[in-house]
Amino acid sequence: MKSMVQINIKTLEEFIIKILKKNKVSEKDARIVSDVLISADKRGISSHGTARLKRYVDHIAQGVILPDVSLEIIHETPVSYVVDGQGGLGQPVAYEMMNRCIEKASKNGMCFASIRNSNHYGIAGYYTKLALKKDLIGISSTNSAPLVVPTFSKEAVIGTNPWSIGFPGSSQHFLLDMATSTVPRGKLEVYARSDASIPLVWATDENGLPTDNPKKVLENVKIRAGGGLLPLGGGSEETGGHKGYGLSAMVDLLCGGLSMGSMGLKVYEKSNSPSGVCHFLGAIDPDVFCGRVQLKQQVDEYLFMLKNSGKASGRTTIFVAGEKEDFEEEKHDTTVPIQDTVFDTIKKLGEEYHLPLEL
Amino acid sequence: MKSMVQINIKTLEEFIIKILKKNKVSEKDARIVSDVLISADKRGISSHGTARLKRYVDHIAQGVILPDVSLEIIHETPVSYVVDGQGGLGQPVAYEMMNRCIEKASKNGMCFASIRNSNHYGIAGYYTKLALKKDLIGISSTNSAPLVVPTFSKEAVIGTNPWSIGFPGSSQHFLLDMATSTVPRGKLEVYARSDASIPLVWATDENGLPTDNPKKVLENVKIRAGGGLLPLGGGSEETGGHKGYGLSAMVDLLCGGLSMGSMGLKVYEKSNSPSGVCHFLGAIDPDVFCGRVQLKQQVDEYLFMLKNSGKASGRTTIFVAGEKEDFEEEKHDTTVPIQDTVFDTIKKLGEEYHLPLEL
Repeated sequence: MKSMVQINIKTLEEFIIKILKKNKVSEKDARIVSDVLISADKRGISSHGTARLKRYVDHIAQGVILPDVSLEIIHETPVSYVVDGQGGLGQPVAYEMMNRCIEKASKNGMCFASIRNSNHYGIAGYYTKLALKKDLIGISSTNSAPLVVPTFSKEAVIGTNPWSIGFPGSSQHFLLDMATSTVPRGKLEVYARSDASIPLVWATDENGLPTDNPKKVLENVKIRAGGGLLPLGGGSEETGGHKGYGLSAMVDLLCGGLSMGSMGLKVYEKSNSPSGVCHFLGAIDPDVFCGRVQLKQQVDEYLFMLKNSGKASGRTTIFVAGEKEDFEEEKHDTTVPIQDTVFDTIKKLGEEYHLPLEL
Repeated sequence: MKSMVQINIKTLEEFIIKILKKNKVSEKDARIVSDVLISADKRGISSHGTARLKRYVDHIAQGVILPDVSLEIIHETPVSYVVDGQGGLGQPVAYEMMNRCIEKASKNGMCFASIRNSNHYGIAGYYTKLALKKDLIGISSTNSAPLVVPTFSKEAVIGTNPWSIGFPGSSQHFLLDMATSTVPRGKLEVYARSDASIPLVWATDENGLPTDNPKKVLENVKIRAGGGLLPLGGGSEETGGHKGYGLSAMVDLLCGGLSMGSMGLKVYEKSNSPSGVCHFLGAIDPDVFCGRVQLKQQVDEYLFMLKNSGKASGRTTIFVAGEKEDFEEEKHDTTVPIQDTVFDTIKKLGEEYHLPLEL
């Protein structure tokens, strides 16, 4: 369905950095944003990759993202931070705070930051992976625009609020990075474009009832006519929808609750002003539990057991969290695939700044 | 479908304690187990209430639960514990360690315990609630017998592994307590008894394919012929089953990974010896983030927003996590409902010890 083009990573990186710098983003911050976006493309999560660049530029123009601010630390203890992102880009504040949490976790056992007044930070797992690289357990989550309906509600008042947690292994990490909705909005867009119907656990119509019509859902969501995406588990308690709803609320409370930031409907509440997106992230040093070497052994053994369990009829591989994305990432050393429409969009964007982009 | 009888709480409590004491459990431990079991019955979670007593007694007889052991603290830091439950009852070790974590969290900001070599500890939310009562955030989870199949597997190698997290509010707490499978085994038993078919996101057959036949699943699971319960999200990536599978694995790694304990297939691996069940629990003091009073305000506002969002067609109430159970609990001051079959079972059990039980 999607037509992809291969683009040189160095070229793409420098292009993204230049575009952001033209929009008052510092070199340092632009490098971080570029790395997070390209990392998503490498890992096959194209919805959170270079495809976001145009929206970031638009958001800077609209005042949703303030490009030239510095984070403010509101409160700090040996195991915690409360941070105000000052309406800036999500990636630089999340990157900086994850690194600070990693440092404190290595010293004090664990450390978490609750960050308010930020913006879209890309793939949650990017930050988790920073901890994994240091043999620590990583956690990363963010709230997001209200597109999801609580169980028995017809109003989209919570976000797709992803939850990511990673445990380091020797040969392979366990890296969970999941939206707490069944699917993200982008998935409905793909089905809508090809006039396909969607499974009934994905979204509800304007009356809050499960629907198989993605176009109608996207229209309704746009004008807030009712309905929206369904939490993981779908639209009824029978299929476990209240659990996905509970997990989404957990993320809101960790991100926005603990930071005195925005939650639910208050995220992206006003146009032309900062979105209020909040994050929660941090790290745990296995040394305050069983030890780093020992945890890796435990992870190795456990993943081996999962992968070697009996295959369901018609299946040849059992995956563990993050494995498909790791496999994808390894393929992309020098070039990365992006959608042709995304390429066209950013090429056009570059022309506005006299920054040519060629494949 | 279930026929319930009302039993006096004091009577039931003293009865459970006496039965356990006859089985070499100390008075102190017996009181804790009794309170956890009755609390489940009060909250309407009868599968984890008094219904478990007979199984505990059987497990003591079989050597799965060692009734007269004391926990051993293997490792301790200001923010963590690794504990060996020595094959004892789950409730006493979880209760003791949650209280110790609460104490350390109040001093050091947060504290978590990873506990190995324990047994079934009842409802996960019981321990979370101990933290909520002190205005702290509580977390509680446990691994369990391998009844759930990973995505694309036909082998039940992971547990229903519940995850519980609670945030304190002024008038109402947020208390999530969810199995990471779509439903627990007990739910299939209810459908099997009334010859009803089950939704296709609940379980798979011996080939690892979704089935609507609960009887067949229960038979297969018993003899490990293949198939089992499905993770939250069902049997395909399209419906999000890989997310529930990932959450179940997260719980295994926190409980059994960090404690050097048993995970997956190793839980209840050998008959007539300790089950190896592991727990992970602890508390976070909101004072190391936004503050206790401030968090309560955030929780209050957030729950208000959720509950007052537009109702789906045919619905009058939107619930938040734990609300239904709180409502149930408030109804039971002096008596508590248990299933008539459970009453018959424990009455008969009492007769073995010359302990009469009347309604």
